[in-house]
Amino acid sequence: MRIGICGLGTVGGGTYHLLQAKRKEITRRVGMDLDIIHVATRNPDPALKKDNIKVSKDVFDVAKNPDVDIVVELIGGFDPALELVLYAIENGKHVVTANKALIAVHGNTIFEAARKKGVVVAYESAVAGGIPIIKALREGLAANSIQWLAGIINGTSNFILTEMGERKRDFPEVLKEAQQLGYAEADPTFDIEGIDAAHKLAILASNAFGIALEFDRVFTEGISHITTADIEYADELGYRIKHLGITRITESGVELRVHPTLISQDTLIANVNGVMNAVVVKGDSSGSTLYYGAGAGAEATASSVVADIIDIARAWREERSSSVVPPLAFNNLRNDLRILDISEIESEYYLRIPARDKVGVMAKISQVLTNYGINIEAVIQKEPHGEDADKGIVPVVILTSRIKEEVMDVAQGVIEGLDEVGAKIIRIRVEQFDGENN
Amino acid sequence: MRIGICGLGTVGGGTYHLLQAKRKEITRRVGMDLDIIHVATRNPDPALKKDNIKVSKDVFDVAKNPDVDIVVELIGGFDPALELVLYAIENGKHVVTANKALIAVHGNTIFEAARKKGVVVAYESAVAGGIPIIKALREGLAANSIQWLAGIINGTSNFILTEMGERKRDFPEVLKEAQQLGYAEADPTFDIEGIDAAHKLAILASNAFGIALEFDRVFTEGISHITTADIEYADELGYRIKHLGITRITESGVELRVHPTLISQDTLIANVNGVMNAVVVKGDSSGSTLYYGAGAGAEATASSVVADIIDIARAWREERSSSVVPPLAFNNLRNDLRILDISEIESEYYLRIPARDKVGVMAKISQVLTNYGINIEAVIQKEPHGEDADKGIVPVVILTSRIKEEVMDVAQGVIEGLDEVGAKIIRIRVEQFDGENN
Repeated sequence: MRIGICGLGTVGGGTYHLLQAKRKEITRRVGMDLDIIHVATRNPDPALKKDNIKVSKDVFDVAKNPDVDIVVELIGGFDPALELVLYAIENGKHVVTANKALIAVHGNTIFEAARKKGVVVAYESAVAGGIPIIKALREGLAANSIQWLAGIINGTSNFILTEMGERKRDFPEVLKEAQQLGYAEADPTFDIEGIDAAHKLAILASNAFGIALEFDRVFTEGISHITTADIEYADELGYRIKHLGITRITESGVELRVHPTLISQDTLIANVNGVMNAVVVKGDSSGSTLYYGAGAGAEATASSVVADIIDIARAWREERSSSVVPPLAFNNLRNDLRILDISEIESEYYLRIPARDKVGVMAKISQVLTNYGINIEAVIQKEPHGEDADKGIVPVVILTSRIKEEVMDVAQGVIEGLDEVGAKIIRIRVEQFDGENN
Repeated sequence: MRIGICGLGTVGGGTYHLLQAKRKEITRRVGMDLDIIHVATRNPDPALKKDNIKVSKDVFDVAKNPDVDIVVELIGGFDPALELVLYAIENGKHVVTANKALIAVHGNTIFEAARKKGVVVAYESAVAGGIPIIKALREGLAANSIQWLAGIINGTSNFILTEMGERKRDFPEVLKEAQQLGYAEADPTFDIEGIDAAHKLAILASNAFGIALEFDRVFTEGISHITTADIEYADELGYRIKHLGITRITESGVELRVHPTLISQDTLIANVNGVMNAVVVKGDSSGSTLYYGAGAGAEATASSVVADIIDIARAWREERSSSVVPPLAFNNLRNDLRILDISEIESEYYLRIPARDKVGVMAKISQVLTNYGINIEAVIQKEPHGEDADKGIVPVVILTSRIKEEVMDVAQGVIEGLDEVGAKIIRIRVEQFDGENN
């Protein structure tokens, strides 16, 4: 089986080296040789010549090469990645890609083109790096109706929240450190505002429920407003704050949301720290299963790219070129499920209310919540200190009962309008995950 | 695709009901119907008649039925399961089984028979119930050389150790409770002595390293000698005691061992509690990945049985009857790897030494360890109390440096022979897992 690799950056280089280093072992797994015969890279390394590999500057040369069976797209971005992938499919090539943005945004088009040509488009490496989570959803859990899944699917955000919690250091300082360590980009927007996680969540949701990719409908909230104070209050209440992607089927439709979330310290996923990723999947037969590992990095991502190549090669060896596993888990996608607006979801909430140090403030706040049918499950109110004390502010921290978000929006507005409240409330969603030890 | 189920006990009944309940969803996943056409059970339920399913008392009738494409073996045990599986293969049927003992002990024979007939024998459900760990090893991590894996693969033992630690209750009391809850059998030997875990470890090791199944070579030690005192000392040292299956490739060969193990409280697997299972796999590219979920129960096990059926059906639909994935991950198994004897492994050790309350006892013990090149990494020695105090015994708890087990055996013998030591030393192996947050 002959492989063409487009892009020799971090993941491309990792994939190239892994295929070369594991040649013998992969042959033992697949029953035939996998040969890289063509690469496209802007800065060709003279060493490539020695390996008898054709080297191009133009990625389309690889997709055009009649000897190439699999095109591995590792250039990233949309342009020219989309055109390249469609061109490769049109030329009858199987495609392996690590491009989460491309699949999340253009996957529906790409999979339809692949179906028509009878080729495979594989993308395990697009979600959670070295963790075989797509395979678990599409194959390992295929007997289940998935009810929900929740994941730490952006290592940068998880690293920042972990550092803030463990070292009591504020967001801007930790972000700077993450940039110095190479965990965050110079422009960190994609990671810390949740866009990268939203790409991955859209892909996971489609594989869980068999729905078309709906990236545009993912509610996305980042972590830049989280403070060490919130992390400490959460800790006191028995929770950790994690940046989660959550998708769930409810009677009214599908929740698709990425945001900071309080989860119980007793759950396994609350203890996933640093740059690591983890996804909990709740199936109706399997119960909760969890998948944990490195979510990024050249080697871990290349591990999944090469696993996809091996999957295709194992089937190819049996002279069957079309995929046995549908790209989004089901042969026919469901179109009867509505994506819910964030205002329609139900959640518990953490509220940090900057109350003025006045008599009766707690009674006023409680009354408003009661008026909207919201119970107080836990509350922390302490002597003010530091900056708050100077301003005459007493932070009141409340965990609420489960309530529809649009009701919470109104109640929050009323509380913020009280004379006794001095500024905007910090609000973070709370998830209980059915009380299991996930 | 037409399915015959042999055995309608806990897992068989779960599989039957899952296939019936998920008929439409499975058809959407596979692209064709999966029909149960024949079952064999000792106590036929009259309801089966309504479903237009042929019912036999003899399991061989199912394997003989020319209309059956897949035989699902869920009778357990060796006799007649082995004969049944070989007979089904001989008749050209694909086989799905949850029988870990059968695969661990007779897998080499079974896979060779299946290879000759070009049929699939699938056994995801034999290890760790609803967790797709075989698929992760054989496919998801196929680009890796696996370096080691470690798992909590017996829910009963994990439940007992968890309860002992959380409720400070002794082994016999917790075992009795586990039996009342149905987590442990009336004869609990298979679970608490590690035999069940050894079956699963043999299967995991073969899938990790591509070696023949070597159940007879698995070193097996149970949990019945663990006391709450040991759990408390471990806790004080920053560790938990878990019953682990561990397999590792070293320069001299393959470690295959099941025993109680101290692991750092900071690792994810140390926080897997109750009847849950988890497996950590260290690949050279992927790094550490962890797979967590329910290891037993009718529904979780049926989830994996039906996933195997779906795998076979997806390939079958494409008119390819032979498996794309080799039964033990590789087409050609390695035979250059020696299974190490337990005396050859290296480990750190926890020692609880029942010393007599005499001057200089610590000096004597330290001197013996030093003589054998063993360092003391941590030590706890407290005022004796209770039964120990009455007998004049001071428990000395030591964590040692890494040393070959045969050296530790000799050093332990010498210490037990000291006048200052009153009884047998309790010794438990300690694992560090390369310091990652598994």
